[in-house]
Amino acid sequence: MSENTNNRRGLLIILSSPSGAGKSTLSRRLLDWDPSLSFSVSATTRAPRPGEVDGEHYHFLEEDAFKRQVADDGMLEHAHVFGNFYGSPKAPVQKAIESGRDVLFDIDWQGAQQIVNSSLGQHTLSVFILPPSIVELRRRLIGRGQDSDDVISKRMQKSWDEISHWGSYDYVLVNDDLDRTFEDLKTIVTATRLRRLQQPRLVEHARGLQSEFQELS
Amino acid sequence: MSENTNNRRGLLIILSSPSGAGKSTLSRRLLDWDPSLSFSVSATTRAPRPGEVDGEHYHFLEEDAFKRQVADDGMLEHAHVFGNFYGSPKAPVQKAIESGRDVLFDIDWQGAQQIVNSSLGQHTLSVFILPPSIVELRRRLIGRGQDSDDVISKRMQKSWDEISHWGSYDYVLVNDDLDRTFEDLKTIVTATRLRRLQQPRLVEHARGLQSEFQELS
Repeated sequence: MSENTNNRRGLLIILSSPSGAGKSTLSRRLLDWDPSLSFSVSATTRAPRPGEVDGEHYHFLEEDAFKRQVADDGMLEHAHVFGNFYGSPKAPVQKAIESGRDVLFDIDWQGAQQIVNSSLGQHTLSVFILPPSIVELRRRLIGRGQDSDDVISKRMQKSWDEISHWGSYDYVLVNDDLDRTFEDLKTIVTATRLRRLQQPRLVEHARGLQSEFQELS
Repeated sequence: MSENTNNRRGLLIILSSPSGAGKSTLSRRLLDWDPSLSFSVSATTRAPRPGEVDGEHYHFLEEDAFKRQVADDGMLEHAHVFGNFYGSPKAPVQKAIESGRDVLFDIDWQGAQQIVNSSLGQHTLSVFILPPSIVELRRRLIGRGQDSDDVISKRMQKSWDEISHWGSYDYVLVNDDLDRTFEDLKTIVTATRLRRLQQPRLVEHARGLQSEFQELS
């Protein structure tokens, strides 16, 4: 029997980590490694930062439009963080997984929790990326610009809030070596695609074996 | 942080399949691939077949001795099949997993079910190997010797009973290409070793991050 992706429901691959732990780089590498992977572009009500492209980095929405989409059950998950709304639009995800494509989410613990506990929970893979140290994380957060101590301290607190949820993910990788972490991530994704629940073709195969058995008995 | 197997509890890797589907070959390959893997030698009350070595293929026990070991809570799982008892002695498994070594089990669905639902259930990985077809399976069962139709028919029924339980395993592989199946099996074992629950070092790492965070805040 050859690779049969017919009838397969795509996997929801969730990557979470505090910012600065390497999550964006790992996401990019995963998407380069497997072009069939679809990336879930989050929606947000926060203003675009310089260089951010609407529809690519985020879907930038007005608060009204965001709330309407939530009310219409159009968000797979959403949360309110530091005065802004963030969410994962449902339609593109459903389209992808129904056609058998896996979807990658770069979201925080609140979003991860909502998806894992949704009706799609059986089809998720959740991975948390931990930094090797806080000193290193802080260095990366500071290195990003000329921010005030206050801003840095706020970011540090947010990072810690995120880190504190590592214990509810399927896999947790300490990113002390980006290449090694990426290898581990690929192994995890490859194995998870082999899980029984991700292989509906097995049901057909078992049915075939049963018919054969009845004929031969 | 380098590979740290300190404090790690070993994984119980369960392989099941009807006989003739390639399970023994796959077990042997896994043990060759990773010499740190420990193999759980089953105990049985059935008579040794020609060439079978006590302590290597099975621990051959008298029925009294077997029942005493069950009564002393010395079997991780046990079952009665075709008039003989089969079981997995607990002591060697506990010794291996407490020292951080993974243990491979070549057992049937009854044994798998008992281990997965035991207190060690969180530390199991269960894989079922399906044959590509029943015709092929039958060919292999017949090919083994000059058995009567009755014996073959009994074996076929036993194979089907085993196959019918594929749906309760974590992973199910259709063994239509031994090399490919072995590659998938290695990927699954490698990924499962990375599961959060198999990485107690994460608890220490997170504790370290917390101390650091408190110092830096």
